[in-house]
Amino acid sequence: MDSKLDKKSELDEKLDYISRLFQKTSHKAIENYVITRLWHRLDDNRIKMLPQQYVNRHEDKYALTDVFFPQVKIHVEVNEPAHYGSKERILADALRKEEIEKQTGHRVCEIDCREILQEIHNKVEDIVKEIRNAVAEQERKGEFEPWNPEEEKNPEYWKKKGQISIKDEVMFDTADKICALFDTVAPCRGFLRKGGTPHPRKELHIWWPSENNKNFYNKLEDNDEKITEYCKDERKREKHIQDFLSNPIDRLTFFKYKDVLGFSGYKFKGVYQLDKNETLSKNALVWKRISTEFQL
Amino acid sequence: MDSKLDKKSELDEKLDYISRLFQKTSHKAIENYVITRLWHRLDDNRIKMLPQQYVNRHEDKYALTDVFFPQVKIHVEVNEPAHYGSKERILADALRKEEIEKQTGHRVCEIDCREILQEIHNKVEDIVKEIRNAVAEQERKGEFEPWNPEEEKNPEYWKKKGQISIKDEVMFDTADKICALFDTVAPCRGFLRKGGTPHPRKELHIWWPSENNKNFYNKLEDNDEKITEYCKDERKREKHIQDFLSNPIDRLTFFKYKDVLGFSGYKFKGVYQLDKNETLSKNALVWKRISTEFQL
Repeated sequence: MDSKLDKKSELDEKLDYISRLFQKTSHKAIENYVITRLWHRLDDNRIKMLPQQYVNRHEDKYALTDVFFPQVKIHVEVNEPAHYGSKERILADALRKEEIEKQTGHRVCEIDCREILQEIHNKVEDIVKEIRNAVAEQERKGEFEPWNPEEEKNPEYWKKKGQISIKDEVMFDTADKICALFDTVAPCRGFLRKGGTPHPRKELHIWWPSENNKNFYNKLEDNDEKITEYCKDERKREKHIQDFLSNPIDRLTFFKYKDVLGFSGYKFKGVYQLDKNETLSKNALVWKRISTEFQL
Repeated sequence: MDSKLDKKSELDEKLDYISRLFQKTSHKAIENYVITRLWHRLDDNRIKMLPQQYVNRHEDKYALTDVFFPQVKIHVEVNEPAHYGSKERILADALRKEEIEKQTGHRVCEIDCREILQEIHNKVEDIVKEIRNAVAEQERKGEFEPWNPEEEKNPEYWKKKGQISIKDEVMFDTADKICALFDTVAPCRGFLRKGGTPHPRKELHIWWPSENNKNFYNKLEDNDEKITEYCKDERKREKHIQDFLSNPIDRLTFFKYKDVLGFSGYKFKGVYQLDKNETLSKNALVWKRISTEFQL
């Protein structure tokens, strides 16, 4: 596969992505104003900006932030006036911010929507400066990786990197590309497309489940830490479970996913291992995440 | 009335206005991208940016442009790919642009959505430079008037200017403010609010019609050049027309209006004179515009 893409398609991809991100927030006037301003004031196509991100607060609690700049690990929260409605709310927000920063090691910047226009502008300018400084620092160390949405969809790009991790938001649009990443091909079984294939060299199964599978129930749970799976055909359910209990193989999982901007594909979720006890008690295969990254 | 408004409300007014303008275009991804970029790159709160504007092409033809900067008389058109679908369409667009520029004396800048992101950015930067230069030139001549949405709603502001013109988009939220502009007060007649009042010094009637009036049909037509009016009660219609035919008084008109961003008020449309011939032939008062401005 040709990993060199012409300038036009690469840039159009970004325009498509960012303009969808703007549209996504258009029902919240001030948030939309701040997000469009952040992007246009940054004015740097190499910087990736992601919409609404789930982040861990505790082990079993998560939060959503409005925008995230993954390369520099900076979240931006645009706080509607309701955030400042009571002392309790203000304290709860401060605790939330502290927990996110502690749990993730990321920075969380807040913008107070009650401010006047000039104050909002100043705050955006501060965040822009912070992002630019972080990028400059990474460049100085030779560590900066420019945003490259076309490349990121190409398995060759990840093979060259030698590793995939959930924090890199690895997503492919087809099972063929998932298989190409591991130097194998997606199997076909007549009209029925298989949901996975063995890893060619390791004792692992490559798996690309979907919640909308006709024959299997697949459900991602507990902030992606757990996947529940069973055969919808009751006559086959028991045998399917027994087969895997007697021969459990860890699964490299790419879950079918549609993001908040409407882009869909198979997103890398990590390596999952069968939890035998829970599988027996639930009468369903219960997979638990054992790793969030994988060396290629 | 206090014409000094605190900084906060003035700036919030702008934030409210611009963020609504962004929302208005959010269904068109690239247009929204360009409009948000124009505003944030200009980064000058003194510059007014208006949504969709009707502009004259001929005497009896008009066009809509996507954004207008009234202080510097620059329109921006964001052309979707369909604009370049055929030679005929390209020629028609070029003619349209030429007609608008000739008829209005304004500049029309176009942005081609088929371009890659960097080209769109370059084009926006060119327009931003053009607007900044025009503002700097006006400042040099002492002619620049910063955008001041709160002040513009205040009759005192216009009294100080000494003139109102349709090109200034003069709009008041109440009939009381229209009357204050002419040093008079809006009359009350029991529960029935009157739709106008005489000018205190000139042989003129101050009129604030609405299309949703319960008792009168009021319709603005022909690109605002004509207003048709009649009493909806058929028993009174004839007498109402005869009264004005025998004693026609020109009307200073503020038509009730809701703009594309959802802001409503009474907008100055000019001075209208009764057209007796058309009034007789249509069995309705037909008012024709005789002036688009008025000296206070």
